[in-house]
Amino acid sequence: MSKIVIALGGNALGNTPEEQLHLITDTAKSIVDLVEQGHEVVIAHGNGPQVGMINLGLSTAAAAGAIKAAMPFPECGAMSQGYIGYHLQNGIHNELAARGMKKAVATVVTQVLVDEKDPAFQKPSKPVGAFYTKEEADAIAKEKGYTMVEDAGRGYRQVVPSPKPVDVIEKDVVNTLISAGHIVITVGGGGIPVIEKDGKLYGTPAVIDKDFASAKLAELVKADMLVILTAVDRVAINWGKPDQKSLDKMTVAEAEKYCAEGHFAPGSMLPKVQAAMSFARCGGKAIIASLENAAKALVGESGTVVEG
Amino acid sequence: MSKIVIALGGNALGNTPEEQLHLITDTAKSIVDLVEQGHEVVIAHGNGPQVGMINLGLSTAAAAGAIKAAMPFPECGAMSQGYIGYHLQNGIHNELAARGMKKAVATVVTQVLVDEKDPAFQKPSKPVGAFYTKEEADAIAKEKGYTMVEDAGRGYRQVVPSPKPVDVIEKDVVNTLISAGHIVITVGGGGIPVIEKDGKLYGTPAVIDKDFASAKLAELVKADMLVILTAVDRVAINWGKPDQKSLDKMTVAEAEKYCAEGHFAPGSMLPKVQAAMSFARCGGKAIIASLENAAKALVGESGTVVEG
Repeated sequence: MSKIVIALGGNALGNTPEEQLHLITDTAKSIVDLVEQGHEVVIAHGNGPQVGMINLGLSTAAAAGAIKAAMPFPECGAMSQGYIGYHLQNGIHNELAARGMKKAVATVVTQVLVDEKDPAFQKPSKPVGAFYTKEEADAIAKEKGYTMVEDAGRGYRQVVPSPKPVDVIEKDVVNTLISAGHIVITVGGGGIPVIEKDGKLYGTPAVIDKDFASAKLAELVKADMLVILTAVDRVAINWGKPDQKSLDKMTVAEAEKYCAEGHFAPGSMLPKVQAAMSFARCGGKAIIASLENAAKALVGESGTVVEG
Repeated sequence: MSKIVIALGGNALGNTPEEQLHLITDTAKSIVDLVEQGHEVVIAHGNGPQVGMINLGLSTAAAAGAIKAAMPFPECGAMSQGYIGYHLQNGIHNELAARGMKKAVATVVTQVLVDEKDPAFQKPSKPVGAFYTKEEADAIAKEKGYTMVEDAGRGYRQVVPSPKPVDVIEKDVVNTLISAGHIVITVGGGGIPVIEKDGKLYGTPAVIDKDFASAKLAELVKADMLVILTAVDRVAINWGKPDQKSLDKMTVAEAEKYCAEGHFAPGSMLPKVQAAMSFARCGGKAIIASLENAAKALVGESGTVVEG
């Protein structure tokens, strides 16, 4: 029996609540397969489309005067954890019930510490929320201190930075739940980003990469394995070229070389490989695999292993 | 040392994220006072204004075409648990840090089982979300099966029922966390309402009264005390009359008599007294008190005790 952190992509969850609930019935099957293999399972997940929808929807409604105030980005992340976590815990409960298995599933609202000196704060790059005119954007920047930039001719939007995760604030809670044999859902969307001042935590508008957050979590809960799920069965080098080659495994040194050679797309396979390397450097075993073949990957029949 | 479930009102949390974050710094002080007295603390909270804002905001944005789909009511409840839970756990963490105390705080996304045969489902009464024209309302009713009614000349809105809580799905998770000495935030907004069919759980649009949900939770986690917080220090009979009288305590039999005599306002003090009676009938001690004087209430210097 191994302790496994699974990193699930937010894009695999669909774009509406109905799509999400539907897609999660399949996701739950793959996850419960791992539980049935006897593993202790912790689930981390992305929230890109979901937090974007919440932030855009509520800022649009606030600008139209339908609600009193727009929602800051960390609070939108917290909402997305509740929303996605509910669907995941509900779907996993139902799949367990269908197999006659009994196990509690817990979604933990999770804050992740970032360093306010992280260089990412100097160059916020991810656009979020509603579109504004230049005048509105200037007023928001002045009132709330947000960075607002022109987005591809469509208007002005808030941009947020993507700092590295430093610590998972609720790690003791997650450890307690794992030890009790529960299935845990945590660091949703990479976690709610917080900075620390004099021991106190403050939400900060940012997006933490969910693969990096999952690797940090796997390290903190002393997981045996980090399983990063993606749309393909294995990592490939020379992607899309005649000599494309899928990999069963790579060492950290090999992965470093492939990264330097530009084999992996930034914002896509690159952060997954980097997160896998970071966990492998801490002595863990990382696997990049597809959701459908996750159970096979754990017995060596699919996926790409990154180790030592 | 006692195990205490605290029921916190959603109205006490303000109407915007900034107000909520500000008000919670005071709420956190009162809660940490109880932790400092040595009690095991579980926090339940309302979400009336918050879930209304989320549902209204996202349905308005969807109707305007800014986002793809409106958000069903159970999902809005899940979002409100993430949003309020994050602020509470953050505020409590910061108050603990200010006092040099170290304790983990966990928000658990929580589903609460209701009975689809509950008579409340026959007469949905609570209006939620955006206002629609009659034509739009008819289309929504046909597409989604929602009950839509005309709301005070302002347009048509969805109405949802308020069934009684039957079970807390995540009770094992909550018990695990309490036993480990963590502070737990759960059944936010009375819980995400779910019905059960063949062992599977399905979200259903409804509002579960947070005081009833708190009483059910207190019963399930075998709490010693249920503390229902409100805007006044004590329950009063003959409220607003010359012979108004504040009560230090009442038995269940006395409380039943006062309820029958119409001393308590429906939707305000009445559900609090009824929830207190329900926990007292299970052998527990319930206290109705103000947030400011919660710690005093626990040593008998404020509040109204409902017992046996």
